Amino acid sequence: MTLPNPVHISGLTGERFQICYRLSGVQSEDEAYVKANEICVEQTVEFPTDLLPQGDICEQLVGHIESLQRREKAIYEVTISYAVETAGRELTQLLNVIFGNSSIKPGIRVESLELPESLSSIFAGPRFGRAGLRALLNAHDRPLLCTAIKPLGLSARQLADLAYKFALGGIDIIKDDHGLADQPFCPYRERVERCAESVARANRATGLRCIYMPNISTRTDRIVAHVQFAKQVGAGGLMLAPGLVGMDTLREIADDDAVALPIMSHPAFQGSFVTSPENGISHYALYGQMMRLAGADAVIYPNYGGRFAFSYDECRQIVEGTQVMMGHIKSIFPTPGGGMSFEHIADMRELYGNDVIYLIGGGLHRHSGNIVENARFFSQLVQRGRS
Amino acid sequence: MTLPNPVHISGLTGERFQICYRLSGVQSEDEAYVKANEICVEQTVEFPTDLLPQGDICEQLVGHIESLQRREKAIYEVTISYAVETAGRELTQLLNVIFGNSSIKPGIRVESLELPESLSSIFAGPRFGRAGLRALLNAHDRPLLCTAIKPLGLSARQLADLAYKFALGGIDIIKDDHGLADQPFCPYRERVERCAESVARANRATGLRCIYMPNISTRTDRIVAHVQFAKQVGAGGLMLAPGLVGMDTLREIADDDAVALPIMSHPAFQGSFVTSPENGISHYALYGQMMRLAGADAVIYPNYGGRFAFSYDECRQIVEGTQVMMGHIKSIFPTPGGGMSFEHIADMRELYGNDVIYLIGGGLHRHSGNIVENARFFSQLVQRGRS
Repeated sequence: MTLPNPVHISGLTGERFQICYRLSGVQSEDEAYVKANEICVEQTVEFPTDLLPQGDICEQLVGHIESLQRREKAIYEVTISYAVETAGRELTQLLNVIFGNSSIKPGIRVESLELPESLSSIFAGPRFGRAGLRALLNAHDRPLLCTAIKPLGLSARQLADLAYKFALGGIDIIKDDHGLADQPFCPYRERVERCAESVARANRATGLRCIYMPNISTRTDRIVAHVQFAKQVGAGGLMLAPGLVGMDTLREIADDDAVALPIMSHPAFQGSFVTSPENGISHYALYGQMMRLAGADAVIYPNYGGRFAFSYDECRQIVEGTQVMMGHIKSIFPTPGGGMSFEHIADMRELYGNDVIYLIGGGLHRHSGNIVENARFFSQLVQRGRS
Repeated sequence: MTLPNPVHISGLTGERFQICYRLSGVQSEDEAYVKANEICVEQTVEFPTDLLPQGDICEQLVGHIESLQRREKAIYEVTISYAVETAGRELTQLLNVIFGNSSIKPGIRVESLELPESLSSIFAGPRFGRAGLRALLNAHDRPLLCTAIKPLGLSARQLADLAYKFALGGIDIIKDDHGLADQPFCPYRERVERCAESVARANRATGLRCIYMPNISTRTDRIVAHVQFAKQVGAGGLMLAPGLVGMDTLREIADDDAVALPIMSHPAFQGSFVTSPENGISHYALYGQMMRLAGADAVIYPNYGGRFAFSYDECRQIVEGTQVMMGHIKSIFPTPGGGMSFEHIADMRELYGNDVIYLIGGGLHRHSGNIVENARFFSQLVQRGRS
């Protein structure tokens, strides 16, 4: 034997977190157990089991199958638990234990997470959450309204003019389109300064509390400066795409007491986790549970019936993931968008009720040639039907 | 109309980069054109085309279809070009233009990238590449040998003892298993210090130049400290998982002249990009072109015939992606692993030749109970058959 044997590990608490995986293409219960056991090993010791030392590595660190059930033809669901210590008190390593190598194996999808208090307490989660964002926006009993300044190619001045009009018309949250970065024809600093100023000016006129959320998805070594600048010139929130900058970057910014701004996550470059029902991560876990753990206060995703292919049921699961009990981790706002227009609102109301941010981008340019009027119409449409 | 019209954008150079996408589930050429046009819009202006202002936004910023061809039943390949200015001179935004929102639409896969000199010159790429890593390791005309210290659960002292024996046996690169983070039973700093020291001690005995690569995938706000510590105690390289920490974090570390260490990328939490042939990113583009752009000197991926499901052909495409001409961006080492053992080497030789890093982890514990001997056997096996 090449390794010390047996191995005793001091300090293991016996506390475990549970991950539910969906296994597909599995023809029998025996095959499901084989696949589940492979996950137990792959996500932890990644070592031939017959060569593992006796003791705590085998008994505690290798994942445990807690339950396994057939769901439908060739589909099983297995719950595997892992020692909380494997996650090393950090989000990156927790994600690594949940799905690091198994992400590369076809037919495995992360369905849901269940973390004990000893693990969830490591994460602060969303700073604002639903209640905090409502308080900030002074919007207590209605859906929130969001739009994006676009298209790419307008100057900072032109986008700031749009932001002013949106705010005047009663939009709650005005965010950068996610394609606005630091392009030469619309530099980040100029855009953020102008847009924040425009929204503040509109707020003085309306008495409302609209906030502007610039897109801070940029080079790793510039994000902090982007955030500080946004804060300094009065941006009321931030938007970033964890698929581009890493989920822990979201956590870092959410946790920063010197920032203390609400954050919206954008799904760019993250879609490959959800485009196949057999692989990746469920809508519930990715857009709900993981975005909450990482600290987003609102999560953007494409609504059913728009330009993308999410189903009604997948959107319903996202809503559930944004509000299911997760210890002290606050519930957050589902923010369905992606080709939404006024016509969709009546139907969406039934699924989302009041706890939603309606995101209409390009569609807000269609009603009439007057942006302020279009925003007001949007606002009235939502207010009229509030639950 | 709600927007200024027409819009003229100053400073556009006319330079464009090209992305080849594979479209699946497409029944006719007309349908393929519709889908391709949707990508042109989705990845740039994300705005209803009938409401777009005339001028440069329509003519320059919206993607252009450069070519479209039927490949097989229901499969088309389309090449779309984008103005280099849309990428805002940063990797995060380049990735966003390539696949941000389209990653969420089923049936679209990124096949390959073609960047003009004006764009590729923004990226330094790998600091070492194949030639630099060979010079560093003094291994000029043979495949390189790599293993991982594991399993999770051993103490820093026990892992350092393994590292010593591997180095003594002639391994070139000894990396952390990717599940080793900063767990209480094996803290990062203690492990890195002990392993770097062990490898240096073995090198003094052998006269070889083995390097140790710790896993620096950690919290965003701790990576720089992790890297500095590794450098300070004499680690000869670094390993990180861009799927966990973001691709631009890899670039940042690769670009840092004060670090100047070779970097190996690990595929953890990135598998969902490649588990479906219809979605995500091709093996060629992800493990080859993108890892090079981001600055990896070697790219780990699961070899065909191991615990994972990559095919021979997909591995061949990765090799091609690691070495295809990309302006000044250096070629890098394919590092196939994932359940490899001595028995695989003869077969792998044919595909990989000399320009490969053989990564055998757990399999190196099987040959005999003597780790030094097993490493020597691995080395002789590879040397014997060198091309």
